[in-house]
Amino acid sequence: MSRTLKEICRHIGMDYSGKDRPIRGLNTLVDATDEELSFFHNEKYRSDLPRTRAAAVLIEERFAGELPEGVIALVTDEPYLKMALATELFAHRIVPSVETPTLLGECAIDPSARFGKNVTIGAGTTVMAGVYIGDDCTIGENCLIHPNVTIYHGCRIGNGCILHSGAVIGSDGYGFAHTRDGRHVKIHQLGGVVLGDDVEVGANTTIDRGALGDTVIGGGTKIDNLVQIGHNCRIGENCLIVAQTGIAGSTVLGRNVVMGGQSATAGHLEIGDFATLAARCAATKSLEGGKTYAGVPAMDIRLWRRQQAALMRLAKKKGT
Amino acid sequence: MSRTLKEICRHIGMDYSGKDRPIRGLNTLVDATDEELSFFHNEKYRSDLPRTRAAAVLIEERFAGELPEGVIALVTDEPYLKMALATELFAHRIVPSVETPTLLGECAIDPSARFGKNVTIGAGTTVMAGVYIGDDCTIGENCLIHPNVTIYHGCRIGNGCILHSGAVIGSDGYGFAHTRDGRHVKIHQLGGVVLGDDVEVGANTTIDRGALGDTVIGGGTKIDNLVQIGHNCRIGENCLIVAQTGIAGSTVLGRNVVMGGQSATAGHLEIGDFATLAARCAATKSLEGGKTYAGVPAMDIRLWRRQQAALMRLAKKKGT
Amino acid sequence: MSRTLKEICRHIGMDYSGKDRPIRGLNTLVDATDEELSFFHNEKYRSDLPRTRAAAVLIEERFAGELPEGVIALVTDEPYLKMALATELFAHRIVPSVETPTLLGECAIDPSARFGKNVTIGAGTTVMAGVYIGDDCTIGENCLIHPNVTIYHGCRIGNGCILHSGAVIGSDGYGFAHTRDGRHVKIHQLGGVVLGDDVEVGANTTIDRGALGDTVIGGGTKIDNLVQIGHNCRIGENCLIVAQTGIAGSTVLGRNVVMGGQSATAGHLEIGDFATLAARCAATKSLEGGKTYAGVPAMDIRLWRRQQAALMRLAKKKGT
Repeated sequence: MSRTLKEICRHIGMDYSGKDRPIRGLNTLVDATDEELSFFHNEKYRSDLPRTRAAAVLIEERFAGELPEGVIALVTDEPYLKMALATELFAHRIVPSVETPTLLGECAIDPSARFGKNVTIGAGTTVMAGVYIGDDCTIGENCLIHPNVTIYHGCRIGNGCILHSGAVIGSDGYGFAHTRDGRHVKIHQLGGVVLGDDVEVGANTTIDRGALGDTVIGGGTKIDNLVQIGHNCRIGENCLIVAQTGIAGSTVLGRNVVMGGQSATAGHLEIGDFATLAARCAATKSLEGGKTYAGVPAMDIRLWRRQQAALMRLAKKKGT
Repeated sequence: MSRTLKEICRHIGMDYSGKDRPIRGLNTLVDATDEELSFFHNEKYRSDLPRTRAAAVLIEERFAGELPEGVIALVTDEPYLKMALATELFAHRIVPSVETPTLLGECAIDPSARFGKNVTIGAGTTVMAGVYIGDDCTIGENCLIHPNVTIYHGCRIGNGCILHSGAVIGSDGYGFAHTRDGRHVKIHQLGGVVLGDDVEVGANTTIDRGALGDTVIGGGTKIDNLVQIGHNCRIGENCLIVAQTGIAGSTVLGRNVVMGGQSATAGHLEIGDFATLAARCAATKSLEGGKTYAGVPAMDIRLWRRQQAALMRLAKKKGT
Repeated sequence: MSRTLKEICRHIGMDYSGKDRPIRGLNTLVDATDEELSFFHNEKYRSDLPRTRAAAVLIEERFAGELPEGVIALVTDEPYLKMALATELFAHRIVPSVETPTLLGECAIDPSARFGKNVTIGAGTTVMAGVYIGDDCTIGENCLIHPNVTIYHGCRIGNGCILHSGAVIGSDGYGFAHTRDGRHVKIHQLGGVVLGDDVEVGANTTIDRGALGDTVIGGGTKIDNLVQIGHNCRIGENCLIVAQTGIAGSTVLGRNVVMGGQSATAGHLEIGDFATLAARCAATKSLEGGKTYAGVPAMDIRLWRRQQAALMRLAKKKGT
C-alpha cells in the first residue's frame, strides 16, 4: 500500500507544505527506508536519530535538530499518538471473501474452510472444517490445521506444522497510544507472524502479529494450549512453552528455552538459550541462559527455594 | 417469556395453593417488580426484605414475617436451590437457525456467518467467516468481527468495536446452587452482555453474560487476548486489561483502570478509577483508585517491593 | 488399527529379525496385552518388568534380562524416543469429511456443523453452528453444544452436558520425546476424552486427549472458561474448576474438589475428595482431601495466612 506524505499529514491532523513524497509504510528509526515514515518518542533510541534514513520523522521540536539533513521533521508534541493515527492508513483492509487457495500439490481441504485472496498451501497439508486463512498467507507442506483455527492475513506457516483447534495466529498485538484525556488510540498492527518448520501450536493459543516487523516462532518449537505470545516476540528454535504461559511483546527467547505452565515474561526481555522457567515463574528482567529460574520475580531456583524455606521458618516461629 | 406462579412452583417442587399470578422473570429483592419472583438467602440483604415489591419470594420460614404485606412468601429450607431450579423456566431456548440479520446500512457479511432471529447490524460493520451471532443481538456501526467469534443471544455491541477471533461474548456465567449431597444445580444466566463504543476484545477472550442483569464493558476499554470477565462485572470506560487477566463475577472497575498481564480480582470488589494492578497482581479486597498495586494479595506496590527486599535479605542470611 | 512388529521396527529404525507378530497398539508395561508394544524408560516402573505381558518392549540392554520369557526385548539406548516414533503408526488419520451423524432420536443440528465418520448423537441434543465433531465420537442425550466447539475424534460425551463456545475437547496432550541434539519428537496421543453426565465445560476451555488411556471428567463436574486440563487427568464427580485454572497431565482429582480461579496443579498428583484450592493456589505435591489450601506451593490456608502476616511484619519493620 502506498500513500503520500501529504495524505498522511492530512489524516493525522498536521500541517505539511513541503514537497510531497510517496510513503510505503511506517518503521523504526533504524530500519526505515527513504520511502517510510518513522517516529521518535523514547529517549532510549536517541542515538538512532542522526543515522535514520526515513523519509520523515514524527518528532518533538527539541529533538528535531538531531535528524540528518534531508530527513523531514514532522514536529508535534505527541509523536507517538500521531504515529498511531498514521498506522490506520497502512492497515490491511479485512473483508469477507470466498477465494480459492493455490494448492502446490495434493492437499485435503475441508469445504467449509474459508480463504482470503492469494493464499498458497504446500503439498500434503490438511485444512479442517471451519478454518479461516486470511489474505496473502503461505502455508507450508504437510501441515495439519485442526478445525476452527484462524490465521489472519499475511502470516507464513512453515512445513510440518500442527495447529490445534481454536488457535489464533496473527491477531492484532495489544498496542495503543494514549490521549491526554485518557482515551486509547489503536496502533494498527502492520507486521505478520512467521512460524518455522515443525512448530506445534496448542488449542486456543494466541500469537499476535507484529506491530511493524513480524512475530517469529523458531522451527521445532512446541507451544501448548492457551498460551499468549505478544507482538514482535522472537521465540528461538526447539523451545517448549507449556500451557497458559504468557510472553509479553518484543521479548526474545533463545533456543531450547523451557517455560513451565502459567509462567510469564514481561516485554522487551531476552531469555538466554537453554534457560528453564519453572511453572508459575515470572521474568521481569532478562535472564541468562542455561539456568533454571523460579518465583516472582524470576530468580535462580536455588535462591527461590531458600526464600520459601526462610518464609516457612518465619511462619512457624513460636509466638507469631 | 411469561410463566405463572403455580407453574413455577410445580417445576421447583413446591406446594402453592394461593391465587395464581403471571411471573415474567427473576430478580433481586431490590429490583424485582410485582411480576417477578425473588429469593432471600444471604443475610447481607436482610434490610431489603421489608422493601421488596416482588410478586413472591423464596425464603426460609424464620424470615418470612419480614416481607411486606401482599408479597407471597414461598417458604423453603433451600431458597437458593429453588431459585436455581426456577431459572430454567426463564432460560433462552438455544436452537440452530439460519436467519438473515437486519442490516441498517451497507455491511460486509461473510456468507458462512450464522445468525439467530432478530439480529440487527449497524452500517459499515464487517462480519467475517464462521462468526455466530445469537437471537436478539444488536451490533453497532463500523464494527469489525473477526473470524470464528461467537456472540450469544441478547448481547449489545456498541459502535466501532473490534472483536478478535475466538472471542466469546455472552457465554453462561459460572453460577450454581449446591444440593446437600454435593451436586451442583445450574443457575441459568438470564442477563446479557453490553459493550460500549470503541471496545476491543482480544482473541479467545471470554465475557460471560450476567446472571440477572447485564455484564457491562465501558466505552473505549481495550481487552487483550485470553482474558476472562465473569458475570455481572461492570468495567468502566477506557480500561486496559492485559492478556490472561481474570476478573471474577460482579466486580466493578472504575474508569481507566489498568490490569497487567495475568492479574486478577476476586468477585464483588470495587476497583477505583485510575487504579493500576501490576502484572500477576491479585486483588482480594476492593482497591482505592489512583494507586499502583502489586502482589498476592494486592498491596501498594511500594509495600510489595519492601516485602520482596525483606524476603531476599532473609534468604541470603548466613547460615540459612 | 493393526501393524506388525517388523513394520514398526522398520519405521523406528531398529533391526528385528525374529518372528513377526501383529501389534494393535502401544501400552504401559502393566496394561499391555500380547498384541501390544510397550516401553521401559523410568526406573519407577522397574517392578512392572517381570510381570508385563506385552508382545515386545523397547528397553535398554541392561534391563532386558528382567523381562519374562516370551516377551521380545527391542534393545535400544533411547526407548522413550523410539516409543514416540512408534506412536505415529497408530495415530488416527485426521481428514476432512462431510459425514452425517447417526441421531438416536430427535435432535437439533445446525446445517453448518461438521461431522467425521461414525458419530452418534443421543436424543434431545442440540448442536449449534460451526461445531466440529470428529470420527467415532459418541454424544449423549440432551446435550447443548454451543457454536464453534471442537470435539476431536474418539471422544465420548455423557448425557446432559453443556459445552460452551470455543471449548476444545480431545486436542493432543503435550507429549514429546527429546533427541540428544535438543529436538522434540511428537508422542502421538492415542487416547481419548470421556465426559460423564451433566458436565459443563466453559468457553474456550481445553481438555486434552490421553496419551494412551483416556482423560476422564467425572459426572456433575462444572468447568469454567479458559481452563486447561492435561492429558490423562482423571477428574472426579461434582468438582468445581474455576476460570483459567490449569491441571497438568495425569493428575487425579477426587470428588467435589474445588479449584479456585487461576489455580493449578503439577502433573501426576492426587488431590483428595473435598479438597479446596484457593484462587491462584498451585499444588506441587499431592494433597489430602477435606482441607483448604492456598499459596505457591500449596499449603494449609492457615499456614499461608501466617506466612503472609509474618512477611508483612517484616516489610513494615523500622529500618528496613
